[in-house]
Amino acid sequence: MHEFDLIDRFFRRPKQDPPWVRVGIGDDGAVLSTSPGSEAVVVTDTSVAGVHFNRHQSAHSIGFRALAVNLSDIAAMGATPRWITLNLTLEDATPEWVLHFADGFFQLADLYSLPLVGGDTTKGPLAVTVTVGGEVPAGKGLLRGGAKENDAIFVSGPLGGAAAALKSEGEQPSLKHALEYPSPRLELGQALLGLASAAIDISDGFLGDLGHLLKTSGNLGAAIELDRIPMFAEAVEALGHEQALDLALRGGDDYELCFTVSPENLSHLNDLESTSGLRCTRVGRVTASGACQLLGKGSSRDRDETSYQHHW
Amino acid sequence: MHEFDLIDRFFRRPKQDPPWVRVGIGDDGAVLSTSPGSEAVVVTDTSVAGVHFNRHQSAHSIGFRALAVNLSDIAAMGATPRWITLNLTLEDATPEWVLHFADGFFQLADLYSLPLVGGDTTKGPLAVTVTVGGEVPAGKGLLRGGAKENDAIFVSGPLGGAAAALKSEGEQPSLKHALEYPSPRLELGQALLGLASAAIDISDGFLGDLGHLLKTSGNLGAAIELDRIPMFAEAVEALGHEQALDLALRGGDDYELCFTVSPENLSHLNDLESTSGLRCTRVGRVTASGACQLLGKGSSRDRDETSYQHHW
Repeated sequence: MHEFDLIDRFFRRPKQDPPWVRVGIGDDGAVLSTSPGSEAVVVTDTSVAGVHFNRHQSAHSIGFRALAVNLSDIAAMGATPRWITLNLTLEDATPEWVLHFADGFFQLADLYSLPLVGGDTTKGPLAVTVTVGGEVPAGKGLLRGGAKENDAIFVSGPLGGAAAALKSEGEQPSLKHALEYPSPRLELGQALLGLASAAIDISDGFLGDLGHLLKTSGNLGAAIELDRIPMFAEAVEALGHEQALDLALRGGDDYELCFTVSPENLSHLNDLESTSGLRCTRVGRVTASGACQLLGKGSSRDRDETSYQHHW
Repeated sequence: MHEFDLIDRFFRRPKQDPPWVRVGIGDDGAVLSTSPGSEAVVVTDTSVAGVHFNRHQSAHSIGFRALAVNLSDIAAMGATPRWITLNLTLEDATPEWVLHFADGFFQLADLYSLPLVGGDTTKGPLAVTVTVGGEVPAGKGLLRGGAKENDAIFVSGPLGGAAAALKSEGEQPSLKHALEYPSPRLELGQALLGLASAAIDISDGFLGDLGHLLKTSGNLGAAIELDRIPMFAEAVEALGHEQALDLALRGGDDYELCFTVSPENLSHLNDLESTSGLRCTRVGRVTASGACQLLGKGSSRDRDETSYQHHW
């Protein structure tokens, strides 16, 4: 099938573009109006077959997830997404595969009324690059670098589910769903503007990404209470508490937000949770140490001291 | 080598970002201020090894060209480029290869003081996706859809050089340069704002891309004077006039601009050429026919009628 046929058939839709799209797909570039008083936010991410997804994963999930991981970055900036470009490299995909891919992709795009404004389809080993543009009130974007000593550390949902899905043999629905259909925390990210002191999305693993946040904030450290780390019940059942906890700390592919809140803003976060229904879990606090203390026994014999030092 | 080492070593540079970059590489996303009264323009393009470039092409040229083809789209919109993201998928590239790639990429980026604000490095078959954001005065962007009957059709430089380089056996410097180091016509594109009625960059081949422009402008046609098509002397020498002309018409990978100018604006274009030193060639005019007439004998026996109908 010819490239342009593919694009026309699956990616150029009769759906009306939102008002900020002056020119969408079909010219040399897209033209987008910008909101006064806002700054642009741009994120991008490539997924490669055999590395970021495997042949068993459904095309629907690959399409959904390629967009979700980018929207998770948008969420971590507190931004509102506005447009998407998609670069799709296909080797031997059938029209059915591309159709299911597009279905998954647009399922998430439509949830946030996001227009696909550009991209290309090329021949080659299967890979997907998605770029998303968003907007944030000028000077207000959530960054990694604003955490302070004694800020509370939160995560936006249970961790380790995607990693457990890859590890476990069974078919645990909640884990499979966490792996294949991660939910970008866009509403939460936007609600945290002016409230969180720093934020990052968890893609490489909680401890690693928290480490990026604390390093950027001035080589700070953290005290993490292991008993507070939210986990998937099915991960604990399938792999045991110790391995489930390890995957929650280091597994990655969570696409939850990790963020810090100053002591004086904690009550505002409580208010937010009670009015919005958004739920976050406080898992520790920022320290001046430059390293990470993992507090609590967990169930591991390796951690039967009260404090375990994790270095990043 | 670890992904982040690569990024740090070659792509995160001490160079200062321009003032519109509030947050560059290193957070979940880039944050960019926008100019009041402007609209955003976004273009993106993927190059895949074995399809868009081959193993013989230097890493320096691959890096330069991956950016150039995107800047050519920015030029075709009359926009001023502001930022770049780069998604680089590498299988077995050596650090030397990546260094040369980065050198070529930044040679062009630095020419226009363009910051690299995001992207990723992934493992997999060699491919490069570049996305460029630009700005254009609100409502003024050059589009494909504005040509009118009797507008003059121009191209910004000689055509067919890149295609001739791929076809010819020898080492003609001008052809090799056209293939490996295309010059995006950014200054011309910006100068054409308010002057050209429609524009497109020539990537698929002059006739094909002109066809896109005329179709978008309302299924118009063109009368093209073959004797006016600018060509590379080395292409004519190496391949003969007939094949050189065919490649100029259909070869592609030119990354010149094709644009239309209304009769009343022709004097302004002349003024522009004489003050700026930018040179364009008038190659025909827009007709109402919906098809393309190729006028003039060229040197081809296939074209020894005075008019040859090309259909798109």
